[in-house]
Amino acid sequence: MKGYLDWAATSIPDPEIIDKAASAAKKYFANPSSKHSEGIRAKELLEKSRRICASALSVPEKSITFTSGGTESNNIAVLSLLRKKKKGKVLISAIEHPAVSEPCRILKELGFEVIKINPDTDGIVKPESVIKHLDNDVQFVSVMLVNNETGALQPAADIAASVKQFASENRTKIHFHCDAVQGTGKVRFNFSDKNIDTISISSHKFSGPRGAGILIVNTSVLPLISGGGQESGIRPGTENLASIYGMSLALEKAVLSLAERGKKCKKLLSLLYSHLTEIRGGEIIPSSRKIDDNRYSPYILNITFPPVPAEVLTRIMSDRGFFISSGSACSSINKKHSDTLSAMKIDSKKAFSAIRISTGYTTTEEDIEAFCSILREEVEKLLYISR
Amino acid sequence: MKGYLDWAATSIPDPEIIDKAASAAKKYFANPSSKHSEGIRAKELLEKSRRICASALSVPEKSITFTSGGTESNNIAVLSLLRKKKKGKVLISAIEHPAVSEPCRILKELGFEVIKINPDTDGIVKPESVIKHLDNDVQFVSVMLVNNETGALQPAADIAASVKQFASENRTKIHFHCDAVQGTGKVRFNFSDKNIDTISISSHKFSGPRGAGILIVNTSVLPLISGGGQESGIRPGTENLASIYGMSLALEKAVLSLAERGKKCKKLLSLLYSHLTEIRGGEIIPSSRKIDDNRYSPYILNITFPPVPAEVLTRIMSDRGFFISSGSACSSINKKHSDTLSAMKIDSKKAFSAIRISTGYTTTEEDIEAFCSILREEVEKLLYISR
Repeated sequence: MKGYLDWAATSIPDPEIIDKAASAAKKYFANPSSKHSEGIRAKELLEKSRRICASALSVPEKSITFTSGGTESNNIAVLSLLRKKKKGKVLISAIEHPAVSEPCRILKELGFEVIKINPDTDGIVKPESVIKHLDNDVQFVSVMLVNNETGALQPAADIAASVKQFASENRTKIHFHCDAVQGTGKVRFNFSDKNIDTISISSHKFSGPRGAGILIVNTSVLPLISGGGQESGIRPGTENLASIYGMSLALEKAVLSLAERGKKCKKLLSLLYSHLTEIRGGEIIPSSRKIDDNRYSPYILNITFPPVPAEVLTRIMSDRGFFISSGSACSSINKKHSDTLSAMKIDSKKAFSAIRISTGYTTTEEDIEAFCSILREEVEKLLYISR
Repeated sequence: MKGYLDWAATSIPDPEIIDKAASAAKKYFANPSSKHSEGIRAKELLEKSRRICASALSVPEKSITFTSGGTESNNIAVLSLLRKKKKGKVLISAIEHPAVSEPCRILKELGFEVIKINPDTDGIVKPESVIKHLDNDVQFVSVMLVNNETGALQPAADIAASVKQFASENRTKIHFHCDAVQGTGKVRFNFSDKNIDTISISSHKFSGPRGAGILIVNTSVLPLISGGGQESGIRPGTENLASIYGMSLALEKAVLSLAERGKKCKKLLSLLYSHLTEIRGGEIIPSSRKIDDNRYSPYILNITFPPVPAEVLTRIMSDRGFFISSGSACSSINKKHSDTLSAMKIDSKKAFSAIRISTGYTTTEEDIEAFCSILREEVEKLLYISR
């Protein structure tokens, strides 16, 4: 769809994959737990999907746990602490998605100490800012791979390595979790990193069907829900086989074309960056982000045009056929200000006007050109009015 | 599909509905939380789906909470106790599905007292057997609508009324939960019963797409997972809109044709009953179940041919193109004996040989005739061998 620049909220699904998933829903309809040949066929497709995902991510098959999506994957990881007897410390970056920060709020209510670690003004969590909080009470650390609002790549692997080194030296156990929802299939990442205990992945962020996600589990995790024992007991319930199969195909496609898609989106982002920074009053968030800046995902750009309210601008752009976001769509139900931008100490007026533009593999140069031209027109109009 | 008689494990999906869901996945792909017009269109389809479900079930729209399926719905209801300060008593029938009994096991580990209430030998939980356990410590009672192994209809409404009367007289609060997964769209039930706090529903049991379910919430429920606040915060995460929409269509269809489909399946069950009881050594479970017995769902029949192992018989039937189940498919991963049959005090030899035959709205008389004739042939062969 032309004009859709909100891929970080959800991607445009791959129509071929949606059709293949629908065919699978009809053809492999039986319950994979059933012992008859129809059930076995369904189970085989489930395991084939697991193999495809494991191979795409270069991880062992047994580490792939299918879930209903990214929010659930993150919650399983965080809330596995619920059943621990000791209520210790939890360190999370202050820019985690609500799917991580909200379950941590629950942990806090239940007696855990939750410490939120601010990023620097570039939106990047520095390893030393996490390391200084490590002590023998720390049970869990969570740092995301790609921030959903700024696109800032986080040094999750470096932080995990430091955390595990500390744990090993101090003979303690610390679970390291990484929310890779915005990075999977988009940026290079070592999913088999032994220092990372759990990793969250969401199908609908890389053009797969809804209702499916992955939790990569390299450690033992206590399940959140219980039932028939599916997914090694970590995520019971009759498997959403069609979506899981579709996800595996979308993941394989994304990983195989990661370099090619990334190159294309980098070019689009440069175009976007240069056009938008030409608009008077526009300021990239963070302002230190350069064109072609490797510290950020090439799929997400955050820019502000104060005092134009982001909500007004996104609505006007929507009326003109361009779909962008103010802050992250996932938290737009809770009408809060962006945690990420305030943790970066972005001036509240700038944060109020911040819009997020996010592209995908079907976005074209023409889309970007058309978007930038209409955005300039509308921003100039709004700035004129608000003078 | 001919020969599929395992609808209680999962139904054959309605192909038209799968196609409509796939179209919706493509057409309404945006995130329903997004504020642009594409997001609003997606949100409108979500709310339309909620209206369809509410109208089909005759419940207020606001009570419909979309989940990822029956297991999750049951877990949300049961594990809402996790965050209660007081750890009191939980009463559940001894024949609940693992999606209810397993989270109750977690509650037990965490200090709750869980009392399992046996059904009578007909597989029906008598209200008085629950009532006698009520006291001021009871916080939660769960009795299912239709048992998944025997088809026995449970007096959930009567039990709920007694529980609520006790609670009101004793100025205490007791949550009554009903797992209606095997009954929804199949047997008549008052889903707006004010005595029932939460009701679980699963899309794939009535020919809707996988990955969607409902928790009817008439009370306040503490969520199990947290995140972006979707579904009034009870079930956050980007909505699986296509499956939800498909579920609403399947539910509407099932409810509108409940009488007609029920009549047909009653006829099929009588046929099945009369043919199978003609086979020497066959015994309906429970033996008191009569042909056309209104105390049981017309979609499920349990019969045993001791000493023929159910597992052997289901495999042989599968090789011959007929798909039935030994015990419930959902728990067949955990190779335990059936809790339901042992709670009914069914002799372990009979339980070992018990098979479940479950029909659906596309099952035909020819399917039943063919199935019974092959089953007779195979049972007689196996009985001959085992003499």
